[in-house]
Amino acid sequence: MKEKTQLYGVILAGGSGTRFWPLSRERFPKQLLRIIGEETLIQQTVRRLLRSMGAERIVVVTNDHQADSIKLQLAEWKEAISDNIICEPEGRNTAPAIGLAALQLLRRDPEAVMVVLPADHVIAQPAKFQQAVRLGEQLAKAGNLVTFGIQPSRPETGYGYIQPQRRSRVGSRGKMTGYRVARFVEKPNMTTAQRYVKSGNFFWNSGIFMWKASVVMDELEAQKPALAKGLRRIEKMIDAGAGKADIAKQYHRLESVSIDHGVMEHSSQAAVIPVDFGWSDVGSWGSLEEVASLDQSGNVVNGNIMDIGSTNSVLFADRRMVATIGLSDMVVVDTPDATLVCPKSRAQDVKQVVQELKRRHAPEHLEHLTVMRPWGAYTVLEESPGYKVKRITVTPGRRLSLQLHHKRSEHWVVIRGKARVTCGDEVYDLHAGQSTGIPVETPHRLENPGSDVLEIIEVQNGAYLGEDDIVRFQDDFGREKQS
Amino acid sequence: MKEKTQLYGVILAGGSGTRFWPLSRERFPKQLLRIIGEETLIQQTVRRLLRSMGAERIVVVTNDHQADSIKLQLAEWKEAISDNIICEPEGRNTAPAIGLAALQLLRRDPEAVMVVLPADHVIAQPAKFQQAVRLGEQLAKAGNLVTFGIQPSRPETGYGYIQPQRRSRVGSRGKMTGYRVARFVEKPNMTTAQRYVKSGNFFWNSGIFMWKASVVMDELEAQKPALAKGLRRIEKMIDAGAGKADIAKQYHRLESVSIDHGVMEHSSQAAVIPVDFGWSDVGSWGSLEEVASLDQSGNVVNGNIMDIGSTNSVLFADRRMVATIGLSDMVVVDTPDATLVCPKSRAQDVKQVVQELKRRHAPEHLEHLTVMRPWGAYTVLEESPGYKVKRITVTPGRRLSLQLHHKRSEHWVVIRGKARVTCGDEVYDLHAGQSTGIPVETPHRLENPGSDVLEIIEVQNGAYLGEDDIVRFQDDFGREKQS
Repeated sequence: MKEKTQLYGVILAGGSGTRFWPLSRERFPKQLLRIIGEETLIQQTVRRLLRSMGAERIVVVTNDHQADSIKLQLAEWKEAISDNIICEPEGRNTAPAIGLAALQLLRRDPEAVMVVLPADHVIAQPAKFQQAVRLGEQLAKAGNLVTFGIQPSRPETGYGYIQPQRRSRVGSRGKMTGYRVARFVEKPNMTTAQRYVKSGNFFWNSGIFMWKASVVMDELEAQKPALAKGLRRIEKMIDAGAGKADIAKQYHRLESVSIDHGVMEHSSQAAVIPVDFGWSDVGSWGSLEEVASLDQSGNVVNGNIMDIGSTNSVLFADRRMVATIGLSDMVVVDTPDATLVCPKSRAQDVKQVVQELKRRHAPEHLEHLTVMRPWGAYTVLEESPGYKVKRITVTPGRRLSLQLHHKRSEHWVVIRGKARVTCGDEVYDLHAGQSTGIPVETPHRLENPGSDVLEIIEVQNGAYLGEDDIVRFQDDFGREKQS
Repeated sequence: MKEKTQLYGVILAGGSGTRFWPLSRERFPKQLLRIIGEETLIQQTVRRLLRSMGAERIVVVTNDHQADSIKLQLAEWKEAISDNIICEPEGRNTAPAIGLAALQLLRRDPEAVMVVLPADHVIAQPAKFQQAVRLGEQLAKAGNLVTFGIQPSRPETGYGYIQPQRRSRVGSRGKMTGYRVARFVEKPNMTTAQRYVKSGNFFWNSGIFMWKASVVMDELEAQKPALAKGLRRIEKMIDAGAGKADIAKQYHRLESVSIDHGVMEHSSQAAVIPVDFGWSDVGSWGSLEEVASLDQSGNVVNGNIMDIGSTNSVLFADRRMVATIGLSDMVVVDTPDATLVCPKSRAQDVKQVVQELKRRHAPEHLEHLTVMRPWGAYTVLEESPGYKVKRITVTPGRRLSLQLHHKRSEHWVVIRGKARVTCGDEVYDLHAGQSTGIPVETPHRLENPGSDVLEIIEVQNGAYLGEDDIVRFQDDFGREKQS
């Protein structure tokens, strides 16, 4: 298929979010959060790319756990983007993810130029980003592997740095110039980082890249031949209609390596464009103040906060009331099932909390009480031995799978909209204020036949209430084999 | 009625709690909280009195809003204490409350000696308290109005002080001595407080008193004749079976005055016993560390807290997970609908939060999501326009009133125990996993006929869901006229 321009966007959205816990969860990472501005970070990332290309040219690489939430958040560009969501069976770092996307784009367009960017960064000046992409495209077409270097504002030891070869220009556009890369440096120690900042000739590696899909595949072939071969094998398996499990097995064998380490650091084609478009990777709650809008006292405030005299603090609430008095340089984040309180300077240590929760198999590390599904969403209102209460929201026209449970009965009370209920051999409609009961072992289905949202309260009863007690007979979303 | 001993306990439990918000609420104050040890403060107060008297000699003065919760907490001594709960129509400070109790005791026993004590103080050494009560009884029988003075440990400006007349002893027992009071001093400024502490001859007024009921009534008669007359009038009205509203009207006319200010300060009969029984009024979250048990890092920790390296902090959670990292001298209190975060030094300012919530008519100042009722309790799981979800717990053998609602339908799903449901003309039993619907305008009743606790999930539907949309036809707890 021949297309007019050759520019494509590849959004890397597979990361699991620990640093913004409890607002982020393993299955609901940072890119899905509305932490700055009106839109979530992945929505802002799409919006940023749309300045340079149509939505149909945007590819998202993610995983099964996040795909539903991402589709929901990108519903505005649904027709265009839905077909371009690539689900990795598991995260194997950036090189395999980028390789998969490159192979897919090459089949669409052998001349494809890719902008690769993480879904969870902030770029305050999208117009400047757009200009940088223009120069990047020019350099990529000339065969360069283009990186974007950020002028460091502090001796950050958490980032990699890029040193340009100032005498070796590879191209320019307006005030922006691209240089051959002298060297990539992995996370330096503090002394080295201070020296880099002082020198003025080291830039943060933003993790944003541009290249021709064919060039990056050639380079992968040259430097990581086993990985490149594995990716091509997977492509063939997909073509041949191989099962999910077989593909996952193959994917698991791929080397888990970053594109920086696996390709860029050893390539003679690497180029860097020093840029200044207000980039931040928003690495922790403590860094939010760099990019969010502050109140008069320097606080970032969100949700149902009642504050008396706090300063320079990050105060995030949901619907529950959070009262804060006289805090300074603190982080308070409240969600329906978990709260975090720490000084800004300790915000990085939230990782330790998440690790400990994971070790304890505590649900708070994995998911929110509200879980997105392709047909809508559910929120657990209360769970105790013997029963679980959920609010279930079904999108107009959608329906859950035809299913049964071995170990629980379910009771549905419609609180909004119209429900079409299948229970055994019967099909009937319920309106707000009506209810029904689904006995154990009875095939049933919930559908929203209307044009308004359907909301029900579901009360589950039984000795075992796990989400995996489900037999799916038919599913609109191909989940017959999943729980 | 003649009784063997003449000692009675009067627990003042009418206060409305703002200083322990969000754990305390206007209708669920500090005395009902389990903030130190296994029992609530009022349970500990009863336990303390039981060393000196039988449960049937304990009277509790409170109000309608707290009476159910108090009865529930004192269920262990139910038969004895339930008949001795006096509900004030409104709080008019301590003098009217004490007067009401004195009049009631005088009818039981003209020689009654009262120990009057707030329900929400901590006394770490109850055996020493018991000894002090013995001396107090001796002095009270001799006609003294006895106070207990606490050796000050800091120049506290929030308490009143008592200066004994060291040369005028009124009695002694073991190492304890009672003195005539030289003077009462209201809350001093810091300079004065420092001088008092240094002098060694000023004691904190603990708010605990002992006297003969007849003596305190005589003194009230002499110093506040209008108040004494008003109280006697109310006593007659109660005898004559006057309505609640009439009594409330009369009560509202009583002077609102403390027993200290109204009686003690001007009495020549006032005595003080300096004591050392580990008293604390636990005035704020910040003061909890004085009486609670601390972990190795000096924290008071309660509930589902995951802490990394905090010191000297008060960390209170419920079932929700609260993660704290590196806090020092902070207060974090989490409840199902509200959270407080502040430095210990600002803990007093929680009053401002409560005032502001009250001004906004926010429900978080008034009640918890869980509300006690004479038949059990309910917890609001979720409330939104159009619906409300509650978990309702009914004590074995109890039933709610026979009632109807004009504006909402209700759906009940039994999750534990057995429910006897009256709906219109029908009466039927439901077991765990069964459900029923109560249409609008239909008389209905929920009863627990079993010997185990009954729990149901109730989903309410309707345009108006206020607790006051209720018509009661019959009620086991005399609430036909209440909402």
